[in-house]
Amino acid sequence: MEHQVKIGLFGFGCVGQGLYDVLSQSRGFRTTIKRIVVKDPSKKRSLPASMFAYDKNEILNDPEINLVVELIDNAKDAYEIVSTALRNGKNVVSANKKMIAENFEELVRLQHEFGTSLLYEASSCGSIPILRNLEEYYDNELLRAVSGIFNGSSNYILTKVQNEHLDYATALRQAQELGFAESDPTLDVEGFDAKYKLVIITGHTFGVFARPEDVLNLGIGNLAVGDVEFAQSRGKRIRLVANTFQLDDQRISLFVTPRLVAKDDQLYNVNNEYNAVILEAAFSDKQLFVGKGAGGHPTGSAVLSDISANAYHYRYEYKKYHQQARFTYSTEIELEVYLRSNDPVLFDEIGFTSISERGINYVSGVNYVIGTIGLKDLIRHRERINASGSFLAATGEVIVLDGSRKERKQLSESVGI
Amino acid sequence: MEHQVKIGLFGFGCVGQGLYDVLSQSRGFRTTIKRIVVKDPSKKRSLPASMFAYDKNEILNDPEINLVVELIDNAKDAYEIVSTALRNGKNVVSANKKMIAENFEELVRLQHEFGTSLLYEASSCGSIPILRNLEEYYDNELLRAVSGIFNGSSNYILTKVQNEHLDYATALRQAQELGFAESDPTLDVEGFDAKYKLVIITGHTFGVFARPEDVLNLGIGNLAVGDVEFAQSRGKRIRLVANTFQLDDQRISLFVTPRLVAKDDQLYNVNNEYNAVILEAAFSDKQLFVGKGAGGHPTGSAVLSDISANAYHYRYEYKKYHQQARFTYSTEIELEVYLRSNDPVLFDEIGFTSISERGINYVSGVNYVIGTIGLKDLIRHRERINASGSFLAATGEVIVLDGSRKERKQLSESVGI
Repeated sequence: MEHQVKIGLFGFGCVGQGLYDVLSQSRGFRTTIKRIVVKDPSKKRSLPASMFAYDKNEILNDPEINLVVELIDNAKDAYEIVSTALRNGKNVVSANKKMIAENFEELVRLQHEFGTSLLYEASSCGSIPILRNLEEYYDNELLRAVSGIFNGSSNYILTKVQNEHLDYATALRQAQELGFAESDPTLDVEGFDAKYKLVIITGHTFGVFARPEDVLNLGIGNLAVGDVEFAQSRGKRIRLVANTFQLDDQRISLFVTPRLVAKDDQLYNVNNEYNAVILEAAFSDKQLFVGKGAGGHPTGSAVLSDISANAYHYRYEYKKYHQQARFTYSTEIELEVYLRSNDPVLFDEIGFTSISERGINYVSGVNYVIGTIGLKDLIRHRERINASGSFLAATGEVIVLDGSRKERKQLSESVGI
Repeated sequence: MEHQVKIGLFGFGCVGQGLYDVLSQSRGFRTTIKRIVVKDPSKKRSLPASMFAYDKNEILNDPEINLVVELIDNAKDAYEIVSTALRNGKNVVSANKKMIAENFEELVRLQHEFGTSLLYEASSCGSIPILRNLEEYYDNELLRAVSGIFNGSSNYILTKVQNEHLDYATALRQAQELGFAESDPTLDVEGFDAKYKLVIITGHTFGVFARPEDVLNLGIGNLAVGDVEFAQSRGKRIRLVANTFQLDDQRISLFVTPRLVAKDDQLYNVNNEYNAVILEAAFSDKQLFVGKGAGGHPTGSAVLSDISANAYHYRYEYKKYHQQARFTYSTEIELEVYLRSNDPVLFDEIGFTSISERGINYVSGVNYVIGTIGLKDLIRHRERINASGSFLAATGEVIVLDGSRKERKQLSESVGI
């Protein structure tokens, strides 16, 4: 049964305005935005000043507002707003992946304790309905892995650099002008944004709440022309890929790195701001979802779908969290990677467990090595890889460590090919 | 709140056994199959005889059974079973696309009148959660079009014929051996199966219940080597594509035909028994879903997800049917097509409104014409096209007729490219 929804909206940036457009043009559905709280009173707005307020309590303490929609940038402020709203008996819709990933278990606890609901489809992969599907449709499916392209602006940059030979800086500026990039671009290009989404998706896939700081994220900030040439010389493209997957019945692992993707993988042709998610399950086998992962309207439409679901009293049940609590996050794997660096000492110290190829990329005149490295070592050397201007891309092959046993595993990205 | 589910299962073929496997291996979920009703007592079964019965009333009149799962072939018998169960206050899960498409409006009425629920995710595109997404996620999205590959076995045949140069008959036999094909293969290869799914999807997309007999379906039964060579000479592949799309604010249209698909369209690389669905919506823009469309386990997992949703009292609300009742099905369009035929008179009589290319396919030594034909004329000449051994494939270009105005429209199948 649908009830009258009165929304208090925090933030009126790209997504907030997108939501407003979507809401004002969608039919058959009774919802009003009663008040919008924003930071900066001086900023020029596209709506009458009477809509806006500058004190969060004008929403949080308004008994008439029964749904808080949180679309601000700052994760700390967002957590204050969201946790207070949930405590005050208000349901919340949020798109703040950083805030949710960093406070995941606590936010689940708050919903349970206060009988309120937090929905955040828009936090993960924009317009792709991945969380709802993981919660509802794959409810009783034995999920084995979820992976894909989770960040629209870095994928936009990679597309422009690889397909249109734009230089990195120009591509980044374009992404920002188009409103795809977070206000702080390192969140996008260094893989933090994708990692937050991966942490959220892992919670809904395996019932494991990993702490973002424990999960590896390497990005494309150091991408050089030589790396692109190398990928092309092998008939591949570089994509920023997030993975979460079962190692066995007890353990899962997850990480975000650039990936060398082959022509016959679906991710090879997912371009610009599009995201892609690939699910692997025991019975439905592989499923691919592709949709816009960035931009005000796609994200706004995901927020609207949560607002609509909330009107029908939909809430996440975190079934895997209750069903499969025995899964734990493990770093007991090795990744096969391409590592290009000007810092020869790094090759010795990063701790390759095996090396299959060592060479000079004559285009860029720098060294690269292809070999396997433990996930623990990659996490430990993450800063150094970034600081030294080195670039790392996974090949998609991982080695699962089980005591003395080693099992090779290919993280494929092709569905129905 | 989940309640104890006691299932009465009709049919124990490929999907029924798939469901049994999926159910017996899935966790955290209390459901028992109390009885299985099958036609043939003499047939050897993989389960103890005590599980089976041969009279439908052993399920329909058993007050302990609160969910009927209908997985039989025969649409007439299926309708008897399903409508009786709904009248007897039992919820139903069905995978029978023909039965649902042919009795769509009546089945919606019965659910409403008797307060019972009918779920049928498995009826449309196997493991792809398309109906639930149309109902729930795209609830307030302005949907413009849904299209894709809706039939697994014909796509399997097209893959073998085009990618592996198998002859048609061998490819069909393989599809049947693998359990992808319906017992009557014409349902698959002539586009009936895809049409039933299209009718169901159109109901959930636009709230329009089109009668299957009013909707054009042309298939691949007459596909000749020359047609494949022609497609390849243009860098294209033939796919059997179903479309439903808005013409304007009042009218929609829908049809199933083979389609010449370009390399950069996603459908080009959707192979074997995989299905693909592309949604176009006002705000989320284009979305692509790819997953297995045939086989016992993928379909069984879709049935299980409905059983699971039913346990949580989920039901279709047919929101678009209530929101957007003003859409009507129109045949006021022309399709640009490739028509190859040995029957020269057909070219004159089918009523091309314009011809852009006329030629001999030297490989097969038969004539083809590329031009535009009214959808009405295609429906009228459908039998003749099939009987004459002719093959037709749409180019994806349609012309929308609005009084004297003509508007060209490209039905593209590329997402994020």
